[in-house]
Amino acid sequence: MTEKKRLEVCLTPALLPLFDIEDSIVVIIDIFRATSSICYGIENGAEAIIPVSQVEECAAYREMGLGYLLAAERDGKVVDGFDFGNSPFSYTKQKVNGKTIVLTTTNGTHALHLSTEAKRIIIGSFLNLTAVCNWLKAQNQNILLVCAGWKNNFNLEDTLFAGAITERLANYTHTADDAAIAAADLYSLAKDDLNAYLKKTSHSERLKQLGIEADIDFCLNVDVATAIPVLDGNRLVRLRH
Amino acid sequence: MTEKKRLEVCLTPALLPLFDIEDSIVVIIDIFRATSSICYGIENGAEAIIPVSQVEECAAYREMGLGYLLAAERDGKVVDGFDFGNSPFSYTKQKVNGKTIVLTTTNGTHALHLSTEAKRIIIGSFLNLTAVCNWLKAQNQNILLVCAGWKNNFNLEDTLFAGAITERLANYTHTADDAAIAAADLYSLAKDDLNAYLKKTSHSERLKQLGIEADIDFCLNVDVATAIPVLDGNRLVRLRH
Repeated sequence: MTEKKRLEVCLTPALLPLFDIEDSIVVIIDIFRATSSICYGIENGAEAIIPVSQVEECAAYREMGLGYLLAAERDGKVVDGFDFGNSPFSYTKQKVNGKTIVLTTTNGTHALHLSTEAKRIIIGSFLNLTAVCNWLKAQNQNILLVCAGWKNNFNLEDTLFAGAITERLANYTHTADDAAIAAADLYSLAKDDLNAYLKKTSHSERLKQLGIEADIDFCLNVDVATAIPVLDGNRLVRLRH
Repeated sequence: MTEKKRLEVCLTPALLPLFDIEDSIVVIIDIFRATSSICYGIENGAEAIIPVSQVEECAAYREMGLGYLLAAERDGKVVDGFDFGNSPFSYTKQKVNGKTIVLTTTNGTHALHLSTEAKRIIIGSFLNLTAVCNWLKAQNQNILLVCAGWKNNFNLEDTLFAGAITERLANYTHTADDAAIAAADLYSLAKDDLNAYLKKTSHSERLKQLGIEADIDFCLNVDVATAIPVLDGNRLVRLRH
């Protein structure tokens, strides 16, 4: 009997040093809103999305005159002087088809840069849930689901998505760690109405004050995309199966 | 209207730097088995329990000739040459009444030493759940529930206990953060049969291999104690109301 592979959930980037990143496929999760928008952008034909850590790095691309779109978000808002932030509605086909986007966000790009030692890094969101799960099942590798959280704090929306993946993979092909078990159980409580469940969180309250309820609703749509963004060098591109 | 106090859950000691420890009462939680045994020992008349970080510190007390009991646990086992580890059955009235115990454990004492800036530090376990909740309710302070976890990793049993406290306090006197909400929801799934729920965890499997199932059963007893251990200087003693 072959030993089952591991399915682990890293609940915040602050816990990443505890995991064996090199021996795992990493899924980066930042549901509100970076990874949802990245999935939507790649689905809509963006040629590539380049994740950078700092606003200054993002701005530096302007000087290069490559015609890239520049996206910068901090604390939930578009940074002054940039084309857009991480609202999924900025990543429509009309806006991004054929374009390259340089993106920096508060949490998602941070989590991604801490995971670069992974065997492979893909981007997950409710938008491409089934596509991600099907691809993961076919790999037969250890999986580490990295929740971007909020400034290294645990958050519920990223954990719920980790639970959605765990529900589909654990017990069959993978052995779940405690955090994955917890995430799957929370998802079982929430999945009938994710939006209602998340209403009780403090994060939801904060996002509401930012006036982005429509974004939130959109990010909780399941399986409206089939593209899986994958890191190739320093660029996120569409995974070719 | 007075603003509600915060009720936060620190899911592993690795996340402690994110919290405002100084402005909170901290509850240390290490269900299997350190804080359960500490509660049971203080309930059974131990004069004090001195938590130390290192096995060597614990051993140093032997040289002092004070007649203290020396307890040292690492990786779930009693360290060679010590009176006992952290099995609750070592903390019976017969063994500990009137005694002072020096204790070092893998996770619980570590979490405690990282929290010393708190307004007050108490020790929680299912054994004294109601006593802890009633006392916390009466304090009207911010509360930080610190899960000792396993070597800085998230674990379910400590999180469930944090959820048990949250269920009794949140919405009434305190505002819960996302981790506290998650903990309470997990507890709602598990509380009818904690032992059955925890059987699915990897930690449970590991503890079973150590042959301590009787300890596990004992640590899941609710409200068999009314004593609350509190840190006074470097000693845990019985809280006098």
